[in-house]
Formats: sequence, structure tokens, C-alpha cells
Amino acid sequence: MITVLKSGTTADQREQLIRWLEEHGVKVHVSIGENHTILGLVGDTSQIDVEMIKLLDIVQDVKRVSEPYKKANKKFHPEDTIIEIGDAKIGGGNFAVIAGPCSVESKSQIIEVAQRVKEAGAQLLRGGAFKPRTSPYSFQGLKADGIELLIEAKEATGLPIVSEIMNENHLPLFDEVDVIQVGARNMQNFELLKALGETDKPILLKRGLANTFEELLMSAEYIMAGGNENIILCERGIRTFETYTRNTLDLSAVPALHELTHLPVIIDPSHAAGRADYVKPLSAAATACGADGVMIEVHNNPSKALCDGAQSLTPGQFEDVMATIQRIRAAV
Amino acid sequence: MITVLKSGTTADQREQLIRWLEEHGVKVHVSIGENHTILGLVGDTSQIDVEMIKLLDIVQDVKRVSEPYKKANKKFHPEDTIIEIGDAKIGGGNFAVIAGPCSVESKSQIIEVAQRVKEAGAQLLRGGAFKPRTSPYSFQGLKADGIELLIEAKEATGLPIVSEIMNENHLPLFDEVDVIQVGARNMQNFELLKALGETDKPILLKRGLANTFEELLMSAEYIMAGGNENIILCERGIRTFETYTRNTLDLSAVPALHELTHLPVIIDPSHAAGRADYVKPLSAAATACGADGVMIEVHNNPSKALCDGAQSLTPGQFEDVMATIQRIRAAV
Amino acid sequence: MITVLKSGTTADQREQLIRWLEEHGVKVHVSIGENHTILGLVGDTSQIDVEMIKLLDIVQDVKRVSEPYKKANKKFHPEDTIIEIGDAKIGGGNFAVIAGPCSVESKSQIIEVAQRVKEAGAQLLRGGAFKPRTSPYSFQGLKADGIELLIEAKEATGLPIVSEIMNENHLPLFDEVDVIQVGARNMQNFELLKALGETDKPILLKRGLANTFEELLMSAEYIMAGGNENIILCERGIRTFETYTRNTLDLSAVPALHELTHLPVIIDPSHAAGRADYVKPLSAAATACGADGVMIEVHNNPSKALCDGAQSLTPGQFEDVMATIQRIRAAV
Amino acid sequence: MITVLKSGTTADQREQLIRWLEEHGVKVHVSIGENHTILGLVGDTSQIDVEMIKLLDIVQDVKRVSEPYKKANKKFHPEDTIIEIGDAKIGGGNFAVIAGPCSVESKSQIIEVAQRVKEAGAQLLRGGAFKPRTSPYSFQGLKADGIELLIEAKEATGLPIVSEIMNENHLPLFDEVDVIQVGARNMQNFELLKALGETDKPILLKRGLANTFEELLMSAEYIMAGGNENIILCERGIRTFETYTRNTLDLSAVPALHELTHLPVIIDPSHAAGRADYVKPLSAAATACGADGVMIEVHNNPSKALCDGAQSLTPGQFEDVMATIQRIRAAV
Repeated sequence: MITVLKSGTTADQREQLIRWLEEHGVKVHVSIGENHTILGLVGDTSQIDVEMIKLLDIVQDVKRVSEPYKKANKKFHPEDTIIEIGDAKIGGGNFAVIAGPCSVESKSQIIEVAQRVKEAGAQLLRGGAFKPRTSPYSFQGLKADGIELLIEAKEATGLPIVSEIMNENHLPLFDEVDVIQVGARNMQNFELLKALGETDKPILLKRGLANTFEELLMSAEYIMAGGNENIILCERGIRTFETYTRNTLDLSAVPALHELTHLPVIIDPSHAAGRADYVKPLSAAATACGADGVMIEVHNNPSKALCDGAQSLTPGQFEDVMATIQRIRAAV
Repeated sequence: MITVLKSGTTADQREQLIRWLEEHGVKVHVSIGENHTILGLVGDTSQIDVEMIKLLDIVQDVKRVSEPYKKANKKFHPEDTIIEIGDAKIGGGNFAVIAGPCSVESKSQIIEVAQRVKEAGAQLLRGGAFKPRTSPYSFQGLKADGIELLIEAKEATGLPIVSEIMNENHLPLFDEVDVIQVGARNMQNFELLKALGETDKPILLKRGLANTFEELLMSAEYIMAGGNENIILCERGIRTFETYTRNTLDLSAVPALHELTHLPVIIDPSHAAGRADYVKPLSAAATACGADGVMIEVHNNPSKALCDGAQSLTPGQFEDVMATIQRIRAAV
Repeated sequence: MITVLKSGTTADQREQLIRWLEEHGVKVHVSIGENHTILGLVGDTSQIDVEMIKLLDIVQDVKRVSEPYKKANKKFHPEDTIIEIGDAKIGGGNFAVIAGPCSVESKSQIIEVAQRVKEAGAQLLRGGAFKPRTSPYSFQGLKADGIELLIEAKEATGLPIVSEIMNENHLPLFDEVDVIQVGARNMQNFELLKALGETDKPILLKRGLANTFEELLMSAEYIMAGGNENIILCERGIRTFETYTRNTLDLSAVPALHELTHLPVIIDPSHAAGRADYVKPLSAAATACGADGVMIEVHNNPSKALCDGAQSLTPGQFEDVMATIQRIRAAV
Repeated sequence: MITVLKSGTTADQREQLIRWLEEHGVKVHVSIGENHTILGLVGDTSQIDVEMIKLLDIVQDVKRVSEPYKKANKKFHPEDTIIEIGDAKIGGGNFAVIAGPCSVESKSQIIEVAQRVKEAGAQLLRGGAFKPRTSPYSFQGLKADGIELLIEAKEATGLPIVSEIMNENHLPLFDEVDVIQVGARNMQNFELLKALGETDKPILLKRGLANTFEELLMSAEYIMAGGNENIILCERGIRTFETYTRNTLDLSAVPALHELTHLPVIIDPSHAAGRADYVKPLSAAATACGADGVMIEVHNNPSKALCDGAQSLTPGQFEDVMATIQRIRAAV
């Protein structure tokens, strides 16, 4: 960490600050210039609150040189994390496709979709049982019944299942769910993250609509700090001024997160664009730029989907996307 | 709601859609043009899922004419809601100042700050006991003990107290808290909103960093749908490309929300700017443009604050801000 | 276009507005509901100013159904435009790579880079002579001398050349430049666009940092309205809250613009990310999602580049990117 | 400036870089830590290109401590600049109101508006003759004739006039214009800025829709570097995800720019909100937070305005706004 002192700082004030910093366990290197004095802080600076230092009268600016996350940090864990779920592997060169409907609606629906996406090559089945909806008057999911139906689809096809949690009190319902998803709106629901840190389930953590890569990694760190290091990061579009697409898919997340962390990074093109016809080009792009997987909405009859239908593919369209993904995987 | 059909739509397809819409309880007016057929949907369209209609093959676009929120909607409740908390009133021409430290740290701290802000004219005391922090390694608040200390400060000064909740399971701890705050990161924590809808406490609902006015009102609607209509909306800055200030305070929220809803709207200049020296001009601006109150961070010794100190005022600075607010209140 | 009238509108007011609209050459279909009256405007509505109608007292909202651009609109020109520059073709299934240094620096530099990118398979040479720099104290380009050097590189290698214009008064200098580039900051320099509309040169039009797809197409329309329909659109990253990458590359621009317009769409990954090591994954992604080309910065000695060096590839790195692009082109 | 070297940097590499930096006229203070070596650069670093240094293999990060602008910098020019235009003064405690129609339309219109705004207390008259319109098919202004009419209104009322320039070739037409406006879309039209730097007219420089405070100051610096230091900065709303208002007015610009620069800062609430009914609360807010003036659109008959009518006030509404501004000026 670097601390820049204001030009009028006295030697006494400087020494007092240095002593305080050293008491907090860091070494301080001083570099005195004409206009500014610069303190270089060396050691474990993760416990020092940047905002705390910034507020001191004599401090002009504080800049972190190291990242504030540790367990998620590639520097300290250079080897890629590989998440294994049944036969599927994500990360470290392994690519997985998660597919399924936005919402679980009925037994026949979820089993049919599960069979179709399995045949097309998907490794995991997704389906929403608890649905975060902007409006209290919109369909909120089948809840516990939805989880039951997902488990039936898992039994019928052997596909591990992925479903979203919205409340730590629902955790007992997720016992047979293989991957627990944290949605974009809950990325900084720190209480939920802490509760998930105490489980041993793989967590699929979605980036919030206005959250930076660093904040995404800090949210992963919340879960990891609790002891659960099985985290899959997911970019699903951010909010920008452009409203033609529902969100703006930020594919630079793939090289950026691969640089910063050892955790796998997947892409959700369905939610990003909000339109079925963009899923194919964006899945192709995600695969080409090195994502560790994609998560795609598939519905057996999109025009009757209870939510997000406009962004769901038919099983036939999904097969086409899978073929493209496989050709690009072979090329890169 | 308006539905625009694609140019190739057949009469049969059109009639089928119209029947389906009428079965869902709305009347449909048809307007057939050369390039487009337009369906005007009249009646209670709040139950119709815009995304559902959009995904139909024959539909080019769907546009809402009415707002998707009802209980929060000024059209249906033209009279301003006034929230009464002890002697304080917010809304409908009543202006209130909420002041206090970012975090409750100790008995002497919270009581001293409470006394100072009361003397300066604040009507409510704020103080954080459960703190949402980006890093799991940062100070997370005194939790239950912090609530206890707040209650002691309330007893000592008579000021009603405001504190943030992060987990519905903590609700029993908030029995003697007068106003429960929902932070920006939890604005779309729908499970928490639902739980708060079942209480009868006034809720201070902060706008999320990337949420629209409409989404803020939909989150208020979640609470109101549960039966609790005592909601104070709070603008606290949104996330934009400008990083010189911590967030961008969007003061247009005041006239915009006053146009759309009957709920009171207050401004939090401390979190928006992230700097104590901008609190005075931004509080003045908030007051001048018609806000129903402001929420200001005050610390008895800002340079030792455990969090957010850089944005906290000293009691002396707070007195100066109060004087400015009162002069502007008198002028407008 | 759809105009929604307020609930209190009288029949007289409505008829007056309808007459006014009909005088402006559109047919009006009326649909009278309980709460709203909806006017469907049919015909050539491109001359009607949405803002003009919106300001009328009786109007609640106006929504365009048709796009405000015509010559750039795929609906009226369904066949893809193919831009031919020497032997290179861009659009309609043809893919081209434009490569070269950020700035032209010297004869040996530009000729060496030109030879290297040609050998690696690039079809066009780019090089900046007039440089838009945020600071007046930064290097502003070799100007006319830079154009001269580019022409020498063109003569030496046969590669057509692309260079940016910043001032219509410089147009005479661009006589032998094959493609004139309009930078992101000048996307809405309407006077420059008008001047370029009077030339017959292909124009490479970059999307502005905060401009929508529709605004990009309206800027293309400015050039096309003047008679020059040879336009290549270029996505180069937009400005968002994420600052880890210089800009956020919005790859949804490729399917979105291909849906809206017949003009070719290329991607500039170098400026978007601002980092050489992201150029390969983002070029791969751009190719996979159907872009009509990419524009890549290549420098013979990046660590001495006078500007933007951090985002430039060495010729060796560029060869590697070209190989990846070609494999992906073959796969999709 | 601070340069952080990567952990593997050798002493030789470090010394080589230090020599290079010293040759460029700065002194270097070295601070060697366990993980990082930090170089503190002292002296005139404005000529050093941050991007140039960043690209070096051994460099991890470069951070500016000083601002890259000089002539606009308050540190070097602590006294506020006061712009005098006829009897009006802007800055240094002086407040001015600029009012008038979006577009000059006719002699009677501009003279009537000029008389009305003068009576209400405005110090300057604005009127657009050259209009930057998103669509080539929209009204582009009366051009030279519009300037002529403005000059007639100036002669009739004595009010100095403000009008926007879009092309340096139009400069001769602006001889009798008192303040030349640069619109938001041209804020980084560096060629236009350079041309204006060679005039001696006050320049009203609007912040671009996605430009930072620093970029606004760098654009002011372009004009000042040419010798013209008479610049009025104007905040007029930035582009964010919120679309309910046309733009998001960023009032923190007032305290922020007053901290960074000695140049006056005014607010344009009309363009920010895009709605006449928000002009009063936002003008009040701008005045309360210390702006040096406001620029307000006034039309003698808003419902017939050729452009931007929805955001224009009637003269009667403007009088009401002026009264509010004056009361708030008296209060603060």
C-alpha cells in the first residue's frame, strides 16, 4: 500500500503515523520529495482499512498495490481450481455447459428439458425454483416443489443440478442440489454469502449488475473465508446506458478474472442479452475467449415459459449452439 | 399496455392473441396500419408479464403505458404519505434530519453523538450495528451489542433510532429500533423485503447503486404488498463512470419520485460523495430541491471512526450544515 | 409511432392533434380506452420530432415503433453492404484484418510494421497521423508527414491504408488514404460527418464511448444522407463503472448491429481493453460471434511506442492472433 | 508520480529505468520493499506519459499524484477566475443567469424572449443558431441568420449573447457573439478547442455525456494552452443507466470542480432533466450548492418550439424560478 502525505506535513506528524502503521504490523519505507512524502507499506496490509487512513488530515491519498482478497487470489494460489460435480469438471482447461429452463414448471417440463439438453451434450441441468422477480406480483417460482421436481429430473437423467438460493433459511431444501447459485442481485448479500461459506457445496456466484471484478472476488472471498472454496464465478452482463440489449455482456471478464483468480469463470449469455437469438453468437464468443463454461436457458416450449421465455432456446436451437461451441473448442 | 405486432402477422394469429389477452382480463383495442398492427390493452395489466408477450413470434414490441406498481403509485394515492416516528414527521411538507455515526462503537461515543446531534436540531439518531462491508476482513459492526447501545442512546436523549438490517433472522433484535434501514446492496433482497412487509415498522429503503426509480418503487411495493406501507425512500448516489466522487448523487430523484409516488424521499449526501467536505453543499442542494429530509453521518471524533470516517462530520460541522439547511428551508 | 394521450384529453383536443399529424403526412389510427387514448401513426414518421409531440399538454408519451434511420436500415436494404478496398472486402461474409501502429513514427517503423502485418495476413494497414489526445501536452501525431509516411508504406507493400481524420480542413491530405477513420470522440461531430458525406471514401466510424447503437447508426446516416454509403461500423468499447479494463468491449454490438443494419461491423479489441494481453482472447471472441473484421494495434517495438504502447502487439504476437482468428473462421 | 516495479525486477533494470526517468527531468526516490519496489517521481511529471511507463515489462503500476492540468489547476492559481461579459460577472462569488430559447427561430421570438428574461433578471441571452442534432433529418438551426437575429436581440436589450459553435470555420460569424459555447458532444473535439484557444472570447465549455471532471479540465486546458483563459465550465447531465430523466445531473460537479480549478462552474438543468417541470427544483439545488450560475431554456411559446420544447420554460415560469434562485442566494 502507498500513502501519499500532504505537502505541509511536519516530521512529527509523519513519525506518529509511521509508528501507528508499524504497530499494525506493516513495515514503512519513507520517500521524501519536494511536494509529497510517500510512505510505502510492506507486509500484510489486508487488515488496514484504506478509508481509515484516507481520512487523516495529513494524508493526500492512499493507493493499494496488492489486492484485498487472498484466498481467491491467483498470486497466492497459482494453480487453477477445478470444480468437480459428478462427472462434470469446470476450470483448469475443463469446459462445462449448464442448461435448462429459467423456471421449473412441471415434472414433464423439467424431465423433458433435462433429457434433451443431456442428449445435446450439456453436463449440468439448471432450473429455478426460487425466482428473484422485480415485481411482487410476478410468478415467484414453485419453491420447495420446484426443488423436488429438479431432483426427479436429476434421478431420471443423472445430470447434476444447479438452482438459485435467495434465503439462507432455505438451505435445508438444497441438500440434494449439486451447485447452489447466488444471483446477481444477491452478490453482495453478505449474510447469505457467510451462510454459504459454511456449506461444502459448489457455489455459482453471479456478478452483480453494477459490480466490479474486484467486488466479485471479494464476495467469493466471503464464501471462502468461511471455509468453502468451491466457487464458480459467472459473468451475466452489467448495466450500462445501452438499453437495446437487456444488459451489456462484459467478456473481458474472462481474461481479467483468469488473470486475477484461480477460480473458474463461466458466461451466462441468456440473461445478458435477454434474447434467444443472441445466445449463439455470444456463446461462441465466450468459448473462443477462454471461458470455462456457459450457462444457457433452454425451454421445451419457449413461447409458454412462465418467465424469461424471450431469452430461452428450444432444444433444437440448443443443439445448434452446442455444435458451434464444440467446433470452437476444437479450434482453440 | 401497447403491443405492436409484426407486419407479417395473419388475422388468425392476431385474433388468437387477442382472445388470450382477453382471457387474462384486459380489453383490447385494435388499430391496423400498413406496416404494423397495434393492440391497446386496457384494464388491469399489472398481472401481465411484458416479457411473456414479447417472446411471441408475432410480437414486435410491448410497451407499458401504466406503471407496474400500485400501492406506491401517486396516481392511485395522490395524497403524500407522512411517516410519524415519535415527534418527527417525514413527508407531506415535513422535513427531518437523521444524523449519527456510521457505526456504533461504544456507549460513550453513541450517547455523546446523540446528544450533540439532538442539540443541533436532528430529529432522529442513526447508527450502524450490522455493517455490510465489501471485505470479509473488515469490521462488521458490534451487532446485537450495537443495537443495545443505540437503545441506551435513545433512552438518554429521547431521539428515535434508525439502524440497518441485513438478515431477516435478526428482526427480533430490532424490536425497539424505530426505523429499520435497508441498505443499497439489499434493495433487491426480495426475501428480506417480504419479511419487512410483515412488520409494522417504518422502513428506510435505500436505492441500489445501479437501480432505476421504477425498481426502487417496485422494491417498496414488495414491502407494501405485505401490508407495511410506512416507507421512506432514500437516494444515496448511483454508480457511474465518474470515480472522483465515490458515487454520483442523483438529485433528480427528488422531483422524479415526488411525481411518481406519495412516499417521502430523503437524501444521504454522506455516502454519495464519500467525503465530509461535500456534505454541506449537497445537503443544501437536497433541501433546496424539495427533499423530505437528509441523513448525515456525524462522529464525535471522525479521525478515529472505525469505518467511513472520511465521510463523517464533526458535531461542529454538523451544526453548520443544520444552520444552512434551516436557512434554505425558510427560503423555499 | 405511437402517441398516448392523457386521460383528461377532450375530443376536441384529440381531433386537433390528429389533424395536425395528418397535415404532416401520416395516417392516424385511434384506439380509445378507459384510461388512455392511443394514436397509432402510420406512414413516413421520420420527419416527426418525437420531442415536439411529447411537449404537448395532452400527450402522456410518444414511442417510436420504426427506427429513425433509413439508409442504414436493414429493413429497407436487406442485402449486406460489402466494402471493397483494393483486394480487401469487408462485410457480407467477408472478413478483414486491419493492423498497424497507433501512431506513425518514422519511415522505417511504418514500413517494417506494414511488411510484418502483411506477411501475417492483414489486409489493411492502419496508422495514426493526427492523434486525438486528452492532454494538449501529449504527442499529437506527425500530422501531414505521418500521412506521407503511410503512403510510402502503402507503396512499399500494396496494403491499402486507414487513418483517422480530426478536422474537415485536413481532407485534402487524405486523398491517397483508402479508408478515413472517425474516432470515438468525433462520432457526433456532425460537421465532420457532413463533410465526409461529400467524399466517396470508405469511412470507418467508431462508436462513441457513451453512444447507443441507434446513435451510431444515426451518425452513419449523417454520412449516408450526404451521398457516401461506404461505411464500416466499429465497436471499440464503451465507458462503464468497471475500470479494471480501459473500456468495456460490448460484443453484443455484432449481433445487434447485424440485425439493425446492412453495414459491416468490425471490432477494435486493442482500444477496448487497453492491454496487449487481452487482444488475443477478445479477437477470438469477435471472430466467433460474427464480426466482419478486427482492427489491431501492432508495433515493431511496443516498449518504445509514443502512445498506447501498452495495448500494442509485437509482430510475433500478431502472427499468433492471426492464426487463432483463422482457426476460428474455419470453425464457424 | 509513483511507479511500482514488479517483484522480479533486477537492480540493473531498476537503475536503467531510473536513469531514463532522470533524463526526462524528474528526480526519483527509491523505496525497496519485500514484494515491490516503489519509485517516487518528483518534479515536473506533466510531460511523462503514464501509458508509456505502464507498458514497460518491469512496471506493475503507475499512479499520478499530481493532476495532469496546470493552467486550470487551483493549486497553481488559487484565486477564483471571474469572467466579465458586459455588466455580467461569473465566478468568485458572482452568480449569473443565462436564459433564452434552445433555437433562434424568428426576430420576434428572440427579441420577445430576450426582453422577458431580462425583465426577470437574467444577465445573458442564449440562443442556438447552429444545432447539433442526432438525426440529419432534424432541424439544424437558422445558422448565420440565427446569429444575425441574436445580435439584433442583443442590440434591442443590451444583453450579451451566448451561442454554440460546431465548426471552427464558422468562427468569423461569431465576431459579435459574447460567449461561445462548446456543446457536450464537442467537449473532446480537440481541433475545435485549439481554434478557440486562439480567440479571446469567453468560452462556455460543457461537460461531455461520459466525461470525467479531469477530462473536462483537460479540455479547458486545451483552450488555455492556446492562450485563452476565459473559460466557464458547465455541468449538464451525464449518461447513466437511469432513463427516466434524459440525463443524470451530477451536482457534485460544483464542489468537486471548485476544489480542483479556479474556473467558474455553472449548471444547465434544462438539458440534464429534459423536462420543464424539473428546472425549478434543479436550479434551486444548483444555487444552494454553490454554482456560479445557471443556464435555463426559456421559450415564448414552448409548445411550438422547433426543438427541445419539452424542456423549455415559459417566461412566467422563468420568473418564478428567478425568484426562487434569488431567495436561495440570499439564504446561502
